[in-house]
Amino acid sequence: MTSKEKPGEFDLIARYFAPLAAAERGAFSLLDDAAALAPPPEGRELVVTTDAMVEGVHFPAGIPPGDIAAKLLRVNLSDLAAMGAEPSRYTVAAALPHSITESWVAGFAQGLAADQEHFGVVLAGGDTVSTPGPLTLTLTALGSVEEGRALRRGGAKPGDRVWVSGTLGDAALGLLALKGDLPDVVAEDRDALVARLNRPEPRIALGRRLVQDGLATAAADVSDGLVADLIHICKASGGINAVVEEHLLPRSTPVKQALAGRPDLSTLVLAGGDDYELLFTTPPEATPRLKALAGDLNLALTAIGSITESPSGMPPVRVVGQNGTDRTPEEGGWRHF
Amino acid sequence: MTSKEKPGEFDLIARYFAPLAAAERGAFSLLDDAAALAPPPEGRELVVTTDAMVEGVHFPAGIPPGDIAAKLLRVNLSDLAAMGAEPSRYTVAAALPHSITESWVAGFAQGLAADQEHFGVVLAGGDTVSTPGPLTLTLTALGSVEEGRALRRGGAKPGDRVWVSGTLGDAALGLLALKGDLPDVVAEDRDALVARLNRPEPRIALGRRLVQDGLATAAADVSDGLVADLIHICKASGGINAVVEEHLLPRSTPVKQALAGRPDLSTLVLAGGDDYELLFTTPPEATPRLKALAGDLNLALTAIGSITESPSGMPPVRVVGQNGTDRTPEEGGWRHF
Repeated sequence: MTSKEKPGEFDLIARYFAPLAAAERGAFSLLDDAAALAPPPEGRELVVTTDAMVEGVHFPAGIPPGDIAAKLLRVNLSDLAAMGAEPSRYTVAAALPHSITESWVAGFAQGLAADQEHFGVVLAGGDTVSTPGPLTLTLTALGSVEEGRALRRGGAKPGDRVWVSGTLGDAALGLLALKGDLPDVVAEDRDALVARLNRPEPRIALGRRLVQDGLATAAADVSDGLVADLIHICKASGGINAVVEEHLLPRSTPVKQALAGRPDLSTLVLAGGDDYELLFTTPPEATPRLKALAGDLNLALTAIGSITESPSGMPPVRVVGQNGTDRTPEEGGWRHF
Repeated sequence: MTSKEKPGEFDLIARYFAPLAAAERGAFSLLDDAAALAPPPEGRELVVTTDAMVEGVHFPAGIPPGDIAAKLLRVNLSDLAAMGAEPSRYTVAAALPHSITESWVAGFAQGLAADQEHFGVVLAGGDTVSTPGPLTLTLTALGSVEEGRALRRGGAKPGDRVWVSGTLGDAALGLLALKGDLPDVVAEDRDALVARLNRPEPRIALGRRLVQDGLATAAADVSDGLVADLIHICKASGGINAVVEEHLLPRSTPVKQALAGRPDLSTLVLAGGDDYELLFTTPPEATPRLKALAGDLNLALTAIGSITESPSGMPPVRVVGQNGTDRTPEEGGWRHF
């Protein structure tokens, strides 16, 4: 818990952050050195992940604080979803520049409050410190999963199908739109793309079902970009490759509209990051159950390729375009550096 | 787990951080989206705390990376100690300026490795991101404590004795020494003071015994300064005050030496932060058991004052000097702002 506060920071914590912890008695109104939390339910393991975001690196200056809060929480919940875990509690450490105002803090807390409600999680602790540098936020999310059943990146096998949830490329095109680099996109599509960038939807219910139904051999979330994250699965699984068919990749209507005017940007569907969809592999016989699951969850689940043996000299992930052209991106994924 | 890596960052993680996670199978060599950890032992709760540190705010530029790593881990372990928890796992998020070299990362990891061994904790996950600002580090520490038995700041009662472990003022004088503001202190004393600043000793064994023996009515670690942290205990306990006798405050030999030449700095024993000793209250009849405990742990435990009713108009913590003079500091605690 915090020890190096700005003058008045205790008041800010009491006013804006303690209410977020009210539902967790063991957070002690954020007045103690640490939180004491109930252990995971019987038969489950504790799942923990940490992600940091820096203004100017992970999000541009000027993003509304509620959007920053939502993204910070959601990218961490997406990591839990990729393990098939059920989220429960989180902590936040915020390094705040002196320019941060009380109304910014209020907006940030409001963003967390709305998402707590949405995802059923509760703030359990945190730290606020001052920085001469950019706003830097770190969130640690806790959850639980049935013992020994966490979805892993390793485990994909030759013959498995590769699946992805939702649609791809929205967030990368949203970032371009924010920068003013998609002038021909209508306002409604632009807003939809930016919303996907700012408020990704962690696929928690999907991750839980993949665990409970025992369907996935490997899983990851699409944070670095489809190809980069599929490479992670291939490497972690050992001795396998993947082939993706570009025409199968799920695209939203706004993405289709944007790419119609800018076909040069189609690589962003393959390599653009920040979509936070789940990418996973299943045995081929699971296909009917995946289709039923998509209906249950009211969420698109699309088979986009397959896992193969690993012939020497081949890149771990190949993307095949129409007429069999090689569409494998040079750079596997999206990098913020 | 990490998603926005510097080019080559995967290699750095594999080379320097994955070995720190080797003893935790559920950290998956830091290759997965999150860690899956065993729940706390039967009958215990999960204890979690997060602390962030910023270069130029919490430590000066140029501190060796191993010392930064040690302090980052130890201030968090001190929060667990203040709850009486046994530490087990931790995650680190590091926002690294572009100037950070591979040898810096190696030194940072070495510092963590040495302290893992010392404190019996294991890295379970993390994130590394780039920042255009100063080095910013966030650590989340996990531990466990017997259900419902966590030490709390609230709970001190009139008549209780106020105790502190170890000695006070070392870290604040160490910071002055680092800045060259203690020129008359001999090198050996200077080094001892700086070591207390850079490598505080979390009082884990003491916290565990206070829980197991049921001795403390309230506890906190001395991070903001003795008076500030005692004010926290008074406020959290509700309707009580505390009186501290300045001549009882435990001072190390280097502190005594430094203050002999600079009596104007004696307030740092009261208000200097970063000592990370445990401050706690006990019923008066517990005094003999505390003395025995000090022997068991080979750690000084000193009664420095008592808890009183809360007469109106009195500050929550009063410090009484020799001859009954009022030595209460104007500013309760140490602030980094």
